[in-house]
Amino acid sequence: MIRVAIIGTTGYTAIESIKILLNHPQATITYLTSRAQHCHISEIFPALRDRLDLEVEALDIDKLATVADVALCCLPHKASMEFVPKMLDAGVKVVDFSADYRIHDVDLYEKTYKVEHTDPDNIANAAYGLPELFREQIKGANLVANPGCYPTAATLGLAPLLENKLIACDDIIVNAVSGTSGVGRKAALNWHFPEMNENYFGYGVGVHRHMPEMQQVLTEKCGHNVRLLFQPHVVSIDRGIAETIYCQPIEKVSDAKLIELYQKYYKDEPFVRICDKPPAMKDVANTNYCDIFPVNAKGRVIVFSAIDNLVKGAAGQAVQNMNIIFNLEETMGF
Amino acid sequence: MIRVAIIGTTGYTAIESIKILLNHPQATITYLTSRAQHCHISEIFPALRDRLDLEVEALDIDKLATVADVALCCLPHKASMEFVPKMLDAGVKVVDFSADYRIHDVDLYEKTYKVEHTDPDNIANAAYGLPELFREQIKGANLVANPGCYPTAATLGLAPLLENKLIACDDIIVNAVSGTSGVGRKAALNWHFPEMNENYFGYGVGVHRHMPEMQQVLTEKCGHNVRLLFQPHVVSIDRGIAETIYCQPIEKVSDAKLIELYQKYYKDEPFVRICDKPPAMKDVANTNYCDIFPVNAKGRVIVFSAIDNLVKGAAGQAVQNMNIIFNLEETMGF
Amino acid sequence: MIRVAIIGTTGYTAIESIKILLNHPQATITYLTSRAQHCHISEIFPALRDRLDLEVEALDIDKLATVADVALCCLPHKASMEFVPKMLDAGVKVVDFSADYRIHDVDLYEKTYKVEHTDPDNIANAAYGLPELFREQIKGANLVANPGCYPTAATLGLAPLLENKLIACDDIIVNAVSGTSGVGRKAALNWHFPEMNENYFGYGVGVHRHMPEMQQVLTEKCGHNVRLLFQPHVVSIDRGIAETIYCQPIEKVSDAKLIELYQKYYKDEPFVRICDKPPAMKDVANTNYCDIFPVNAKGRVIVFSAIDNLVKGAAGQAVQNMNIIFNLEETMGF
Amino acid sequence: MIRVAIIGTTGYTAIESIKILLNHPQATITYLTSRAQHCHISEIFPALRDRLDLEVEALDIDKLATVADVALCCLPHKASMEFVPKMLDAGVKVVDFSADYRIHDVDLYEKTYKVEHTDPDNIANAAYGLPELFREQIKGANLVANPGCYPTAATLGLAPLLENKLIACDDIIVNAVSGTSGVGRKAALNWHFPEMNENYFGYGVGVHRHMPEMQQVLTEKCGHNVRLLFQPHVVSIDRGIAETIYCQPIEKVSDAKLIELYQKYYKDEPFVRICDKPPAMKDVANTNYCDIFPVNAKGRVIVFSAIDNLVKGAAGQAVQNMNIIFNLEETMGF
Repeated sequence: MIRVAIIGTTGYTAIESIKILLNHPQATITYLTSRAQHCHISEIFPALRDRLDLEVEALDIDKLATVADVALCCLPHKASMEFVPKMLDAGVKVVDFSADYRIHDVDLYEKTYKVEHTDPDNIANAAYGLPELFREQIKGANLVANPGCYPTAATLGLAPLLENKLIACDDIIVNAVSGTSGVGRKAALNWHFPEMNENYFGYGVGVHRHMPEMQQVLTEKCGHNVRLLFQPHVVSIDRGIAETIYCQPIEKVSDAKLIELYQKYYKDEPFVRICDKPPAMKDVANTNYCDIFPVNAKGRVIVFSAIDNLVKGAAGQAVQNMNIIFNLEETMGF
Repeated sequence: MIRVAIIGTTGYTAIESIKILLNHPQATITYLTSRAQHCHISEIFPALRDRLDLEVEALDIDKLATVADVALCCLPHKASMEFVPKMLDAGVKVVDFSADYRIHDVDLYEKTYKVEHTDPDNIANAAYGLPELFREQIKGANLVANPGCYPTAATLGLAPLLENKLIACDDIIVNAVSGTSGVGRKAALNWHFPEMNENYFGYGVGVHRHMPEMQQVLTEKCGHNVRLLFQPHVVSIDRGIAETIYCQPIEKVSDAKLIELYQKYYKDEPFVRICDKPPAMKDVANTNYCDIFPVNAKGRVIVFSAIDNLVKGAAGQAVQNMNIIFNLEETMGF
Repeated sequence: MIRVAIIGTTGYTAIESIKILLNHPQATITYLTSRAQHCHISEIFPALRDRLDLEVEALDIDKLATVADVALCCLPHKASMEFVPKMLDAGVKVVDFSADYRIHDVDLYEKTYKVEHTDPDNIANAAYGLPELFREQIKGANLVANPGCYPTAATLGLAPLLENKLIACDDIIVNAVSGTSGVGRKAALNWHFPEMNENYFGYGVGVHRHMPEMQQVLTEKCGHNVRLLFQPHVVSIDRGIAETIYCQPIEKVSDAKLIELYQKYYKDEPFVRICDKPPAMKDVANTNYCDIFPVNAKGRVIVFSAIDNLVKGAAGQAVQNMNIIFNLEETMGF
Repeated sequence: MIRVAIIGTTGYTAIESIKILLNHPQATITYLTSRAQHCHISEIFPALRDRLDLEVEALDIDKLATVADVALCCLPHKASMEFVPKMLDAGVKVVDFSADYRIHDVDLYEKTYKVEHTDPDNIANAAYGLPELFREQIKGANLVANPGCYPTAATLGLAPLLENKLIACDDIIVNAVSGTSGVGRKAALNWHFPEMNENYFGYGVGVHRHMPEMQQVLTEKCGHNVRLLFQPHVVSIDRGIAETIYCQPIEKVSDAKLIELYQKYYKDEPFVRICDKPPAMKDVANTNYCDIFPVNAKGRVIVFSAIDNLVKGAAGQAVQNMNIIFNLEETMGF
């Protein structure tokens, strides 16, 4: 039985992790911590009443080392790099949800996130936790940097085309739409129900922090310098990310061949499904699937890619990574 | 041209009032004030960009007296009774959205709202602004206490039965459901989109502040001591209140006679519609209508009553009251 | 490994049953049938792509007998009683989702559902599948009549009060609100998204078919003739039922004692949670829980009861019943 | 007083037209027709109860000529071109909501809509009803082809850049998202509430019928052969269209200059608002505004454009066109 701690237990990725783990036959939750709220977990999340009988406590590294084999660290960036090295030093494996160990270039990280990186040494030790592309690195890792939600959908959608050099690597537009749980569990007027309900709008024009992450991962995989334009939008839906990715083909490949290419690329992947039409956000909600549909249109290739931002885009992928680290069946818990 | 000031211009009842007044052929908005935010109105409400070119300022009573004939006072209770007497003294008529002048019994007010009433003298001068029941008092009034949203739907639904002594006045259950705009325009975790979306729950069990208001108004109209149980719920819808009111009939009246009774009672009312089935929240959204359907069921009489909480339940009713005060066509602006 | 067939595989209760069973360690889905659509299951439900590789076929009783130990019969009333006796004769156990075997009085059934009952003999053989109240009968049953969604919430909410004779059994009002999945998976203008979205309305005034079912079950449990007024409403939410039940107390019991009474009544139940405030629809969504909060208010006792209409109100309860029939841990699959 | 007939009174554009006209000081609705439903208008749209007392009848051209000066023809394509010539012959002006008179090239129309055009002569007589670009043609017209919803947002968003030759005319991607009212008022499983709620997906990849319309209009305005890739998506929101348009700049223009350019281009337009951030769908809902935000991002120019699909994208624009035809203030009714 893998003993799991949840670090930073007040947000949506934490409760989603808990729900998946409660269903996991080889994992048990032993420790819940938070910097802010200390009470029974059911007071924070009434949905967990009678399902998990644990108090949320302040993080005690010694206790952590005693009760947990692995920590799912749901802290935000900056907070994460403060605690992660201590957890690693205490011999606990970490799957980190923040961006702190995702960007390999420290300067780029610091420019993007506008903070000094206080734990640069561990960046090199961190596997990028996208199993479909980096499974081997994850296997032996003590620290896994769980990918961002937008990069998960974009990277899985683009990798087959870029690796096969079928599209220009500097003319890619990722138009993304996210459900509102992506903004986190902190009240603000923008996300106040009567403001956000029945609404949709773009944000982060030209500056979203997930853009460098996407570029780095895809550049590493395809060997070319990938440059893309990423434009996110938020919509009055609870959960889901759907990306419509516009690519410039280098050589013309038929629709049937595109599908075949993707099916082959992901043929052993339990959590990637190749579709025959644009995937619906609702069909991946509450699942760990990434649904992908590549197609030609008016001289471009469009790739549609959809995930649940809280599952494949966060908690589900983290448990998938945990399964790989501990050599368990990758689909356990789902 | 009636010159209108909006006092407390940052909430939903304020923007709703502005939208109605922009459509009003005999009214013009001349002054916007707020205690908290001082900037162009379109910075607070981008939806008003290019529609209203006014700055939101701190309330200056002298300026108010110069530029406005009437103030729609959208302040919350307690704040209202601080400013209303000054506005009245300056010769400006006031339609007040708060509860401060609705409850005639000062003790009851103070017990219900848990504050001392600092302007008890004006309570007696205030007309209760439900035109269908108190039009004559509103006509000559300098101060109108605009009713609460829940009491508007309940009172219009119950008055014909109670006035005609067809139901027991001490065995009434008002089961109410409100859209989320009713909670106001202030962020809180409860109303954070991912918490509130796809949600419905009861609150205020046995203690909601609108209960005494309903009882007072109905007691005044029917001459008996009305006692009711009011149970509100909130739902993930923007706007609308729907009440299902369970009554104990004293004498049996057929369904057809019930409809006839209501049609007769409201026959000259432009904003009450008697329906032949339970009204849908969506059919009154963005209108000043109260839709009512009375019917017998299993020995009870059920009255279904629906309004838009921001229009007939607040801003629309306020403009309707303003029209009455100034002797304009009551439907102007709608 | 229990081999399970799903009969009538095109509706929401069917896909919900499949999702739960895919997660069940001791059950495997072996057969899918439909009267209307014959194709791969993923063509009907793209969400099941790569999760279940079965064709949906016409029901063949011989094949059923060969491949399945139990059938979850998701057919509507009338269709059910045509097929259920054949399945039973073939030695297959049945959990039936329809109303056909819920009402013990054939005349009442025929009056309520306006069809002749063609299999009255099996009514007596059917256990009413509400495990919290009728677990013993379910244990040995070959046929279980899975309860209606509204009756599940109402019965669990009322049983402790009625069995303990704390409330009048002829003065009960059940005000219910259901998410839209309750209307089934068949397009109609009423449920067309732009009509139903942001909407809420009452229906079935005085005549809803679940009223006799509630009365029968509660009468059986409490020994008195229970008479109640049931008023349902539908709301623009996917899933969930929330009932606010107004009761007339016979003797006054404090709030604390009420909670204690309910906790004791359901102390060994894995799927009933007693709350300390009105339960939120969202907290039971996608779970098999019934959340209940009993409280005094203005001389009445109000019981708030919430379930997911597709889970505890249908598919989840069916799997719970299946677990009981086969002597498995009752919580398996959840 | 302009006498207005609504032809095809069962859809969302019809009820939206009626609501706007009820608020129009110089127009009166005199005639409602439908091919399918003949009854009082309030039976089709309960929201109109007590607001419009007219029966919906079969279209009688003689009666139309007697009672109406102008017809808002809400029929779908193909049906429209059957009735429009008769209405014109009878001396009634027509604002046609269908595509039948929008495409100037008959072959292109027939290929796109897959029907024979039975009234080609009137195509040349039809003004394209986008007042901001074609006001002069509309002024004298007897027949106005009201633009499609997607083309309205795209064309207003792109015209300033294309007319000023600031972007390549053959490298434009229009990523569009529409509320569900865009699918019309006809039930289908795709738009059944429990299927569509909390959902978002792309459709019409490479083949949407609005693509040729956009290309034609923009080609006419800018003198170059405009070629674009249009990709629509539908989302679980009632109303609104938001387009994110990716353009390839020919020469670099600063963000400030872009805003200035747009402000100048639309400086006298009452219904175009230039924003300083991506417009929110909710801020244009229930209004006739088109909100536009142009901005540089990573070497591209992105134009965000948002409208209410039923107002500026249909009924509102039709009334705006009607106002122009009859030489009324263009903003009347709004």
